[in-house]
Amino acid sequence: METDILCNIFREVRARRPLLHHITNYVTVNDCANITLSTGAAPVMAHAKEEVEEMVGHAGALVINMGTLDTNLGESMLLAGNAANGRKIPVIFDPVGVGATRFRTAFASRLLNEVKVDVIKGNAGEIGVLAGADASVRGVDSGHMGGDPVVICRDLSAMTGATVVMSGASDIVCGKERTYIVDNGDPMMGRISGTGCMAASVIAAFAAVHPGYPEASATALAAFGIAGEHASVRCQGPGSFKPALFDAMAALSPEVLAREARIRQQ
Amino acid sequence: METDILCNIFREVRARRPLLHHITNYVTVNDCANITLSTGAAPVMAHAKEEVEEMVGHAGALVINMGTLDTNLGESMLLAGNAANGRKIPVIFDPVGVGATRFRTAFASRLLNEVKVDVIKGNAGEIGVLAGADASVRGVDSGHMGGDPVVICRDLSAMTGATVVMSGASDIVCGKERTYIVDNGDPMMGRISGTGCMAASVIAAFAAVHPGYPEASATALAAFGIAGEHASVRCQGPGSFKPALFDAMAALSPEVLAREARIRQQ
Amino acid sequence: METDILCNIFREVRARRPLLHHITNYVTVNDCANITLSTGAAPVMAHAKEEVEEMVGHAGALVINMGTLDTNLGESMLLAGNAANGRKIPVIFDPVGVGATRFRTAFASRLLNEVKVDVIKGNAGEIGVLAGADASVRGVDSGHMGGDPVVICRDLSAMTGATVVMSGASDIVCGKERTYIVDNGDPMMGRISGTGCMAASVIAAFAAVHPGYPEASATALAAFGIAGEHASVRCQGPGSFKPALFDAMAALSPEVLAREARIRQQ
Repeated sequence: METDILCNIFREVRARRPLLHHITNYVTVNDCANITLSTGAAPVMAHAKEEVEEMVGHAGALVINMGTLDTNLGESMLLAGNAANGRKIPVIFDPVGVGATRFRTAFASRLLNEVKVDVIKGNAGEIGVLAGADASVRGVDSGHMGGDPVVICRDLSAMTGATVVMSGASDIVCGKERTYIVDNGDPMMGRISGTGCMAASVIAAFAAVHPGYPEASATALAAFGIAGEHASVRCQGPGSFKPALFDAMAALSPEVLAREARIRQQ
Repeated sequence: METDILCNIFREVRARRPLLHHITNYVTVNDCANITLSTGAAPVMAHAKEEVEEMVGHAGALVINMGTLDTNLGESMLLAGNAANGRKIPVIFDPVGVGATRFRTAFASRLLNEVKVDVIKGNAGEIGVLAGADASVRGVDSGHMGGDPVVICRDLSAMTGATVVMSGASDIVCGKERTYIVDNGDPMMGRISGTGCMAASVIAAFAAVHPGYPEASATALAAFGIAGEHASVRCQGPGSFKPALFDAMAALSPEVLAREARIRQQ
Repeated sequence: METDILCNIFREVRARRPLLHHITNYVTVNDCANITLSTGAAPVMAHAKEEVEEMVGHAGALVINMGTLDTNLGESMLLAGNAANGRKIPVIFDPVGVGATRFRTAFASRLLNEVKVDVIKGNAGEIGVLAGADASVRGVDSGHMGGDPVVICRDLSAMTGATVVMSGASDIVCGKERTYIVDNGDPMMGRISGTGCMAASVIAAFAAVHPGYPEASATALAAFGIAGEHASVRCQGPGSFKPALFDAMAALSPEVLAREARIRQQ
């Protein structure tokens, strides 16, 4: 990707400060709110059936994360997803724990049938399960996954029409015609709770201002990964890594993003 | 306000350690618990209809925050609010996002009709919406507000009988007969999630021990603002600001509060 | 306890990385997730009735914490508890606020009747209430407790068959035949929200790999207490204590645990 594009998407986020409506889990919701602010966007979390459609009306993107799914929350996710489709704002779906229980698998399948999802972001096991590959999920962690991860992402993208993001040591981003590999990030990001969820918020911020979702997603992952790299050199462990991660994301400039991003087209 | 009064209210909080019952949102609830402890009070969060009235029986103040409102939570807020009125303990209401959806606006209106609220705390947009002024709310952020903010606060105070707190670069506190402007605080407080919710917890701690709610609220906002000022000089960004804010609030003494408070009567 | 045993249990946690299924409160759930990771285990939080039994099927231990109990959550706790019993994985129960309301007291009693609980962990007031001693709970804090705490723990252990952990300046751990006193810890641990809940997660990690629950619990409390001691010398107050606590737990080695543990058999 061109350096100019990276800079411009990030500048747009900071200039437009898109409102990101999250229907997400109660474990990492505070982290999602704070990474949204550090990225330069504005968070709102609202889940009541009575209001989600109206709240989507204010938003620049919708994040749906099923980390602590239940039946009520699922209904709100479907309502909000349809409202987002109606307004043509991007829907980012994080299928946390899909494959771990039939309940999660059934809901993810229903959501993908009833809502046009623009970006699906998961770990290898979650993306593998959705793609129908030979994969498993243990709790909310990736278990076993067989097969070529790029092929699996491409398959899921073809099945759903969504940009597919598989997080890992290198992140894979597959759109209809383009595949990117993002090599930014730090192992410390896997040692705290919430980085996966936060990545979806950062992607939402970039997708809200840039309609090329593969490029928006790759840029977002590079930005978040660079923040992780910066934070890891200033922390004493996973506890001090988290505040350092918010500091680094807030301090990141479009120019540093352009200089340090490691995005390869495949 | 007299220096003596500031010192004494804060000393009372630390000496009596009031229990603050919160029915609040799941985004910033942990921050509310920790700022309550750092202030010198004790938090309890409980929302089940079956127990809120009994839990209020232990409390020195009740905080109602509708950040992640739903129908069930709303019913519990009404039950708890009535129980708090029955015990004559202060009720602090944070109408997060009122005006953003009809659901929130209707609930805030119902709560103000059915429960005697002692302190209403919101941003300019939220207070403006409640006062029937020309104002808007975008997600949970203040949008546009027209008119003189002090007049709007006085109007809402006259309409409801509550002390009205409008947060901002300078905080406005309007009671029936007295208006205060609090100039403490730091822009960093707007760069993390939760400072608005935390301010309500701090106000509750002070209101629990001092029946002059305008003075209790102004003193609480000065204390919290000073903690923010101290924290901002010791942090590297919004991530490290939050732990520093809890440190600073816990380290704040009544004497430093009295010396550094910037409260003007208007 | 023998140094070898301490080292080995902790090594087992790190080697096997047990999955800890939590049905817990929304106040400290993020802290529980992060302390689980810092200890060397893996967290999953899931509460929907439709999936808790299946999710328990992946887990090495189940943590039930009633800090923000409601009727729906209670039903899921009973389902999950029975599933855990069926799989013979340890059930750790944290009866937060029992005695503060009839609702909590009734639920705790029902859970102890319908589910075989392996470890009950609470503060002095909570354990006293469950043991039928002269005790009280104020919100979620320990109130008054009369009587000899070791005798009260032994009584509750005899009544329930569970290992009973009473947290305090010194922690008491009572199994059927053995009682331990753990003298590790730091007063700073009482100045933040969540250390009690986190202790249950650490106990669950150790109990998941070691079937001698009194020894697993005492070792876990020593490890967590040592982390608290290490963190308290590196922090500026309660805010910076929390990240330091995660750092210290992640940095703790089995050898340091063995050297610094202060566990006495009584």
